[in-house]
Amino acid sequence: MSGNTFGKIFTLTTFGESHGEALGGIIDGCPSGITLDFNAIHRELQRRKPGQSAIVTQRKEEDEVQFLSGIYKGITTGTPIGFIVKNNGQKSDDYSEYETIFRPSHADYVYQQKYGVRDYRGGGRSSARETVSRVVAGAIAKQIIPNISITAFVSSVGPIFINKPYQDLDFSKIETNNVRCPDLETASKMEEKIKEIRKQGDTIGGTITCVIQNVPIGLGEPVFDKLQALLAQAMLSINAVKGFEYGSGFCGAQMKGSEHNDLYNHNGTTKTNLSGGIQGGISNGMDIYFRVAFKPVATLMQEQDYLTQDGKIITQKGKGRHDPCVVPRAVPIVEAMAALVIADLYLQQKAKSKY
Amino acid sequence: MSGNTFGKIFTLTTFGESHGEALGGIIDGCPSGITLDFNAIHRELQRRKPGQSAIVTQRKEEDEVQFLSGIYKGITTGTPIGFIVKNNGQKSDDYSEYETIFRPSHADYVYQQKYGVRDYRGGGRSSARETVSRVVAGAIAKQIIPNISITAFVSSVGPIFINKPYQDLDFSKIETNNVRCPDLETASKMEEKIKEIRKQGDTIGGTITCVIQNVPIGLGEPVFDKLQALLAQAMLSINAVKGFEYGSGFCGAQMKGSEHNDLYNHNGTTKTNLSGGIQGGISNGMDIYFRVAFKPVATLMQEQDYLTQDGKIITQKGKGRHDPCVVPRAVPIVEAMAALVIADLYLQQKAKSKY
Amino acid sequence: MSGNTFGKIFTLTTFGESHGEALGGIIDGCPSGITLDFNAIHRELQRRKPGQSAIVTQRKEEDEVQFLSGIYKGITTGTPIGFIVKNNGQKSDDYSEYETIFRPSHADYVYQQKYGVRDYRGGGRSSARETVSRVVAGAIAKQIIPNISITAFVSSVGPIFINKPYQDLDFSKIETNNVRCPDLETASKMEEKIKEIRKQGDTIGGTITCVIQNVPIGLGEPVFDKLQALLAQAMLSINAVKGFEYGSGFCGAQMKGSEHNDLYNHNGTTKTNLSGGIQGGISNGMDIYFRVAFKPVATLMQEQDYLTQDGKIITQKGKGRHDPCVVPRAVPIVEAMAALVIADLYLQQKAKSKY
Amino acid sequence: MSGNTFGKIFTLTTFGESHGEALGGIIDGCPSGITLDFNAIHRELQRRKPGQSAIVTQRKEEDEVQFLSGIYKGITTGTPIGFIVKNNGQKSDDYSEYETIFRPSHADYVYQQKYGVRDYRGGGRSSARETVSRVVAGAIAKQIIPNISITAFVSSVGPIFINKPYQDLDFSKIETNNVRCPDLETASKMEEKIKEIRKQGDTIGGTITCVIQNVPIGLGEPVFDKLQALLAQAMLSINAVKGFEYGSGFCGAQMKGSEHNDLYNHNGTTKTNLSGGIQGGISNGMDIYFRVAFKPVATLMQEQDYLTQDGKIITQKGKGRHDPCVVPRAVPIVEAMAALVIADLYLQQKAKSKY
Repeated sequence: MSGNTFGKIFTLTTFGESHGEALGGIIDGCPSGITLDFNAIHRELQRRKPGQSAIVTQRKEEDEVQFLSGIYKGITTGTPIGFIVKNNGQKSDDYSEYETIFRPSHADYVYQQKYGVRDYRGGGRSSARETVSRVVAGAIAKQIIPNISITAFVSSVGPIFINKPYQDLDFSKIETNNVRCPDLETASKMEEKIKEIRKQGDTIGGTITCVIQNVPIGLGEPVFDKLQALLAQAMLSINAVKGFEYGSGFCGAQMKGSEHNDLYNHNGTTKTNLSGGIQGGISNGMDIYFRVAFKPVATLMQEQDYLTQDGKIITQKGKGRHDPCVVPRAVPIVEAMAALVIADLYLQQKAKSKY
Repeated sequence: MSGNTFGKIFTLTTFGESHGEALGGIIDGCPSGITLDFNAIHRELQRRKPGQSAIVTQRKEEDEVQFLSGIYKGITTGTPIGFIVKNNGQKSDDYSEYETIFRPSHADYVYQQKYGVRDYRGGGRSSARETVSRVVAGAIAKQIIPNISITAFVSSVGPIFINKPYQDLDFSKIETNNVRCPDLETASKMEEKIKEIRKQGDTIGGTITCVIQNVPIGLGEPVFDKLQALLAQAMLSINAVKGFEYGSGFCGAQMKGSEHNDLYNHNGTTKTNLSGGIQGGISNGMDIYFRVAFKPVATLMQEQDYLTQDGKIITQKGKGRHDPCVVPRAVPIVEAMAALVIADLYLQQKAKSKY
Repeated sequence: MSGNTFGKIFTLTTFGESHGEALGGIIDGCPSGITLDFNAIHRELQRRKPGQSAIVTQRKEEDEVQFLSGIYKGITTGTPIGFIVKNNGQKSDDYSEYETIFRPSHADYVYQQKYGVRDYRGGGRSSARETVSRVVAGAIAKQIIPNISITAFVSSVGPIFINKPYQDLDFSKIETNNVRCPDLETASKMEEKIKEIRKQGDTIGGTITCVIQNVPIGLGEPVFDKLQALLAQAMLSINAVKGFEYGSGFCGAQMKGSEHNDLYNHNGTTKTNLSGGIQGGISNGMDIYFRVAFKPVATLMQEQDYLTQDGKIITQKGKGRHDPCVVPRAVPIVEAMAALVIADLYLQQKAKSKY
Repeated sequence: MSGNTFGKIFTLTTFGESHGEALGGIIDGCPSGITLDFNAIHRELQRRKPGQSAIVTQRKEEDEVQFLSGIYKGITTGTPIGFIVKNNGQKSDDYSEYETIFRPSHADYVYQQKYGVRDYRGGGRSSARETVSRVVAGAIAKQIIPNISITAFVSSVGPIFINKPYQDLDFSKIETNNVRCPDLETASKMEEKIKEIRKQGDTIGGTITCVIQNVPIGLGEPVFDKLQALLAQAMLSINAVKGFEYGSGFCGAQMKGSEHNDLYNHNGTTKTNLSGGIQGGISNGMDIYFRVAFKPVATLMQEQDYLTQDGKIITQKGKGRHDPCVVPRAVPIVEAMAALVIADLYLQQKAKSKY
């Protein structure tokens, strides 16, 4: 199987370049008989959309999904769900000069080396615009897992962190601010930071934390498709992601076993949850939580050195409309990828559970 | 495809429980005509083997691999390589009491919940002994990628870190000490720490850093099989791993774009390498480096609360011979999994490269 | 992987129902740098199109393919090729009565039983219209295998057979007649037969023979992905196909070894080719040839008994415009599926061949 | 996924050469909690074993399977089932001369061309001995599908056919004779034929018919994993198979729609079953039946021309102990492969069925 498919039973295959006619995908393996909530799908697309607030790119993308198959009278039929999202707002001429130059820390150079040819407009296939298809599929994936709750939020922007465990946060506040941070005081500091960075023509990284609640016990397929292994693959497949940790994460590496072990309650739940809801690669019914690191956006509104195809270095300033901080817009993408992992493992477990 | 297979062209499927008759696997898709270096395979198994030094478990495992097919007169034939590693040193009676109790932060409970039945001896399938098959396959994978160099080492034990970039380390020192740390001063502090922890009947976590050199440009299959995404899956599939970061990693999330971007040299290499050798999911020819976090071993030689199958909490002390710190022995496992990822992507790139 | 994907490296995933907005697919794993011959793709679609002659359905389908990604300035970029074919000519109201009745020897009943819900218009997903996506992908697959020649033709209609080995036929005559039979005398008998059958409001089956020439030695992946095994899967996945045989086929089962063995020439070719170009699952460089059996179309322009959803039997006559014999139109579909098999195995062999 | 794995959820990966130390495989995805009937597994191996009667090869193979994992106290644990079958009775020196010569209609030549190196002893990987692993896995697969009945028998040997529909046969007679033909009169003619052929130092082909009863409605995953498409792949992956047909098969290609359509009864069953229990790629609850053609064994006890590695033709007589007719021994292999197909589709349907 080639690299544009994710999942084994509930699968998503995507296609599309930033400035092609459309992006889209095929969801195969979606169970039949599900009355889809199209508003929920639309809502997720709106959350991912550029141009939502003063701190993100002002580029306009319509991002209306068009379903072409697999759904009849609003109900999934069990056949593959084909969908497209048209690229209306793109201006190709903005990018023509990128045919022969390679931007630093972009994929331009490696695509040229790997494929010998590339659609250089707006990053082509390597553009984060590709994630629009993941958001569509994730929004459907969420609807096949009963009672699941998947919530992501911005937990840091540059040096500014939320200093509370997720249990002390009010998730209903996430969508009330531009950075999608549930701690409002921190949120406003983050927003200030992003504005300051943008004034400098610079960009900044950040982290997203994701919490998955009401996960049935038993999801995950050891030894290679452990739940955390698939979450890690899913997250690292998102543009600009540099790291993943779950439960105690990198902090756990500094701890002693006597501090780290989660002791049981009588009913099989645990008193603490440094394990992050997963043991031996299998969900244990506790909250799953993980953190994802995003590097700063590579396109700067400052002068930088670029490489040309004939081996010269030229100095240039980034063009177009870009996010100074991509992290707020990545929140629905993290949720979508988590949903794809859980949905697929949920169906696998259904297949093999005792009968 | 079920969860015990890794890879798409060069694939490893493993089987085996800690206390069954044997563990093993099948490597399918290995190119023909490769004269195998069996000493190299043996050496890797020795590195993973328990009982190598005073700071690791004194449990004895022979760990001799027996190849059953796919190799004729020392040369790979292109047919599947079946192999087994017998479980000689196991004493099953040590574990009989674990039939009805669940150890904290072990996989006992979730296996029972997921499968309804389990081989409880020594962790069964969830035992780290399963990684012996990965080491065999990794040692073969390394031999199919020309010039590749994959080097892992212990970069922290609990609070003790190497405070140097990997470029300043002498990799030839890694195997000269029990903790597999190339910085000898730090190594001896780590060793002290582990001894101290063992005296307490406790355990401790740590991190491993891995550096892959001489990687051809162009490996990685966007968008879901990005090189870093598969490395992340591979690492998080190893027992006790809690986190993965590559290049700038979580630190990158605190940086500005103007600090983080890697500027080009005329020949396409970069002056810095915060990208960690990967752009847009594809190797760019620079060193790939990443870091993996391991939690402390869950079995303690102290009293702890265990859950029984009928919902009681009992107090007990761990039995058997266990590592106070698993990280030194995990070094060859990290290398093996990295080799599996690179070998598979190398063959995929061969398939699709221009002809 | 769910059931709408074919192939392992060069993969096709399809979606679409007969009367939905569009059908289409994603080709993933196509090598980059191929200058596509779009006329060749168009030509194949025209061959599959209904309404081409007096003996096939007069239903009109435009069948224009629209490529959405993976191709830039006419050259493949190595990224997934998304494409759609719109359903313009469909009239949904023709089919509304099929919501609650099941036609004999159609998929209506099993789709209802399997999925609980179905798009009943025109057969929905089970319609042969789905093969339009295969023809698009097959036309691209042919272009990645150097020098390959894949030629299918109608070798029988009902009781009327070509009584010559394929070596005695002039393939350039295939497209000169409505039944796509290279033997013109037989072709006109077949055409008469089909006209006669149509007058009766009946339908008739037939066979297609396919010959693949200039296949490199070494394609096929034993033991389960033998070349003939994948061809068999590919052919049996086409609507209405009931059988597959290659080389000596079912006749071979009546022969003695001394009659059946193909003796070698000095250069490794064989004097005879009862093996059909494949030994042990691997192409041997001789012509590959196979035969595919199609049942008669199930929709009759006569009265027949139908089952209703509430268990009644009603008598009714088929509606719409249907082929009395589907075999001539299936010729390009057989070729397309053969091309998909060969292209995928060709890339697999490239991956694993010695370097 | 490489070519030695079959299935998507219930998967079998096999390894092993004819004269290596052992053959074996890994069954992954087998549900947990199944109390295995080991006698049933043993019985199937006995049926496949050489040397069972006067009409098959007198070569001795012990064919004892040894399970290494995935089963604890006789119950499947849901973890991969590793198994081996040792090659005890092989004498390698018998085959040493085959290093540099290629037997006609054997896989020797193509293996040499594809892989550049081969284990030439007894056919190596291309030997039918490989099917021993399939029989083990098939015997387990049968045990996970409730009530299923899979029965294969020899329906023709050379020109001698059973001239009755399968419904008129007494399946309990299959194992009462050496050719595994339920019609005893035909059986004795077949046996005579095989003895006559053996006296000539020749071999002969034949066909096997397989009937699958009590299949749940709804198995099969259109469009590429249609039930008949996977059965076809499975059958054509067996050594010496040249053709597959199901239901009306090649005869159906000569029929009219008015003769071929299966009319419904009120309860959804059909009055006739030319469809062979499958519509649109999905089981409809009626009997599934299909027929498989086997070519005559290529090794003859007569003089024949062989090709040498340096391009000479030499005359030689086959050596070793070989079946004059392989068809009786292939009966359990056909059943095993059918069981693998059904088991995998059964689990896939469980995954996606409504909840």
